[in-house]
Amino acid sequence: MSVVVTLLTDFGLRDPYVGIMKAVIVARAPQARLIDLTHEIEPQNIRQGAFALASAVGYCPNGTVHLAVVDPGVGTERAAVVVQTHRGRYVAPDNGLLTLALRVDPPVGAWRLTREQFFLPQVSATFHGRDVFAPVAAHLANGCAPQDMGEEMDPASLVTFRVDPPVVSGGEARGAVLYVDRFGNLITNVRMSDVAGVVAGVRVGEATAPLVGAYQAVEPGAYLAVWGSSGYLEVSRNMGSASGSLGVGEGQRVDVLLAEGSVP
Amino acid sequence: MSVVVTLLTDFGLRDPYVGIMKAVIVARAPQARLIDLTHEIEPQNIRQGAFALASAVGYCPNGTVHLAVVDPGVGTERAAVVVQTHRGRYVAPDNGLLTLALRVDPPVGAWRLTREQFFLPQVSATFHGRDVFAPVAAHLANGCAPQDMGEEMDPASLVTFRVDPPVVSGGEARGAVLYVDRFGNLITNVRMSDVAGVVAGVRVGEATAPLVGAYQAVEPGAYLAVWGSSGYLEVSRNMGSASGSLGVGEGQRVDVLLAEGSVP
Amino acid sequence: MSVVVTLLTDFGLRDPYVGIMKAVIVARAPQARLIDLTHEIEPQNIRQGAFALASAVGYCPNGTVHLAVVDPGVGTERAAVVVQTHRGRYVAPDNGLLTLALRVDPPVGAWRLTREQFFLPQVSATFHGRDVFAPVAAHLANGCAPQDMGEEMDPASLVTFRVDPPVVSGGEARGAVLYVDRFGNLITNVRMSDVAGVVAGVRVGEATAPLVGAYQAVEPGAYLAVWGSSGYLEVSRNMGSASGSLGVGEGQRVDVLLAEGSVP
Repeated sequence: MSVVVTLLTDFGLRDPYVGIMKAVIVARAPQARLIDLTHEIEPQNIRQGAFALASAVGYCPNGTVHLAVVDPGVGTERAAVVVQTHRGRYVAPDNGLLTLALRVDPPVGAWRLTREQFFLPQVSATFHGRDVFAPVAAHLANGCAPQDMGEEMDPASLVTFRVDPPVVSGGEARGAVLYVDRFGNLITNVRMSDVAGVVAGVRVGEATAPLVGAYQAVEPGAYLAVWGSSGYLEVSRNMGSASGSLGVGEGQRVDVLLAEGSVP
Repeated sequence: MSVVVTLLTDFGLRDPYVGIMKAVIVARAPQARLIDLTHEIEPQNIRQGAFALASAVGYCPNGTVHLAVVDPGVGTERAAVVVQTHRGRYVAPDNGLLTLALRVDPPVGAWRLTREQFFLPQVSATFHGRDVFAPVAAHLANGCAPQDMGEEMDPASLVTFRVDPPVVSGGEARGAVLYVDRFGNLITNVRMSDVAGVVAGVRVGEATAPLVGAYQAVEPGAYLAVWGSSGYLEVSRNMGSASGSLGVGEGQRVDVLLAEGSVP
Repeated sequence: MSVVVTLLTDFGLRDPYVGIMKAVIVARAPQARLIDLTHEIEPQNIRQGAFALASAVGYCPNGTVHLAVVDPGVGTERAAVVVQTHRGRYVAPDNGLLTLALRVDPPVGAWRLTREQFFLPQVSATFHGRDVFAPVAAHLANGCAPQDMGEEMDPASLVTFRVDPPVVSGGEARGAVLYVDRFGNLITNVRMSDVAGVVAGVRVGEATAPLVGAYQAVEPGAYLAVWGSSGYLEVSRNMGSASGSLGVGEGQRVDVLLAEGSVP
């Protein structure tokens, strides 16, 4: 039976690093089914990697091994971990990269990777993706149990970053841009459950974007807000890039506009 | 038996969207064999996507499922379709994206995707690649028949875009640049059968490029024309980029030069 | 049993060329396991491709078929070759692209690809990746013997490029930047065995980078040298790009600094 192994890194596709990791996995677990989530996370941007990973885990088959490496602390004392959840397993540096994935897929156990027999014989100072995480993912795909691979730890003690929820007061909600995608869509941190009342639109930078059901509900070039495919409120520009034309990026404030009389 | 599923989108590889589509497919059709054609189609450029898809279909095994998503109208009333051909099946928005592929691989049937049991349980407004097209492709790879998935329609009523053939008059042919590739090669819309006579070269922008048999038939930095690998006349620059140095892009006029006395 | 086929090209991922090569392989060798090493080699940069390939071959399973196409001479009389090694097989143009891989994985035989029955029926002037190399790789993955595919040649007569070793004199070593990766790391041509004495650091451009064991051994923004994951001395910038901030690229001189009193 073929196990899915997803890969998410900030290694890019220009260098052979990702291909080397895949060779390491396939040499040890020939039946593993590899799926690239993305390798174009901005170098060392743990929050961006966390968002991308979390948006994918709900669509992967049960038993999937998620291999995630955005690792500015490679070669230091930061731990490498395996986390077991109900849906699958995660192999990653313990630096917050799993923060958002483990909110949608909560951990049932965690282990610090300490048994070197599961690593490559030579572990370099700079490429644990190849030397530590890829062989561990292969062993997991082969059926090795996480508890045989290292020291158990409390999942609550995993490193996480702070996630600021939107600020809701009275009938208003103020959020922030979480992620900007290739199309220049601005994905905010506002979920439907955050807002008491009916959303009429979003104000961000110089734009006021009405909430609609599809990009083409507004004229080409106009801004719009939609409940996006990840469950968050997004701001887009029909046939264009909201981020590019507004000059808005990650972290920027957004104001959610409520329909008059809609607040209970 | 493993069915090939090709993927072509304008989603890029920076965001996890393509990885999520693959997870959706593999979770439903573990035996599917995925081949990425490209995900770097310019956002919403249906013609560019159509060209890339058409250039690949002749090389795929019989029975291949082609999943193509360049979809500026996502969330509107534009139809989602499955098209059956002698060689394979296509899943795409009905917006012209299949125009060129179905010229080389003519349709034998077409269906509007209307049966929601083949979609994900929740269909978002903005990501039908994940919610509609990927699960439908998985079901096709699993052997589901297109006729069970929606309402039959006349393949002749599929949306297409107009394709301007080269203008041939007397011994001359005037065409246009169809596609510019990574190397800066200018792929024109001129096929060998369009031209009565022996092609001597191509004039485009400020360059006059002689027809040769290989890039290195001219000096480094010189322009040349070749019958390209897709069957079209192409203009290139040896060890350089014709598009970059001539400032020529898609849609630009090209003039085919005929050998004197070669016109019947 | 599934054979691994690695792919390395300068075709990029924007055009469908790589997808077409994969279709050609999978149509002929459905059981082949494809691994992309990279397709973002700078167009026609044979040395860069050679470096990327050589850094990967040691991690691939025995029996792997390596398909490598960086081919400025496509369509000329340059030979296409298969090279057999103890670890695997290489299919490539004979233009130096295998120079570095065959240093770590020495050849035991080489053949010029001359039997057209192993190619596509129509061989274009410009896309031998599709028409020659991909079908040959598929036949190799299917168990065809290289000796049936062409004329034997002396592996010593394969085209190679000159590799300048670092210049070592007295207690000093002077090398050059071999490769710059996505993170802006400067990978030099200096190996541990090149240097008699203990390396204290590297001087390159305006920076003097101390040798450390991990990126975070220096302050954010500071330069450092490490023994990199490919076995070469590398210069990096903690949380930044050494190449970008120093304006240093491939070919640039580096000076290795030795610890006082460390030279025997």
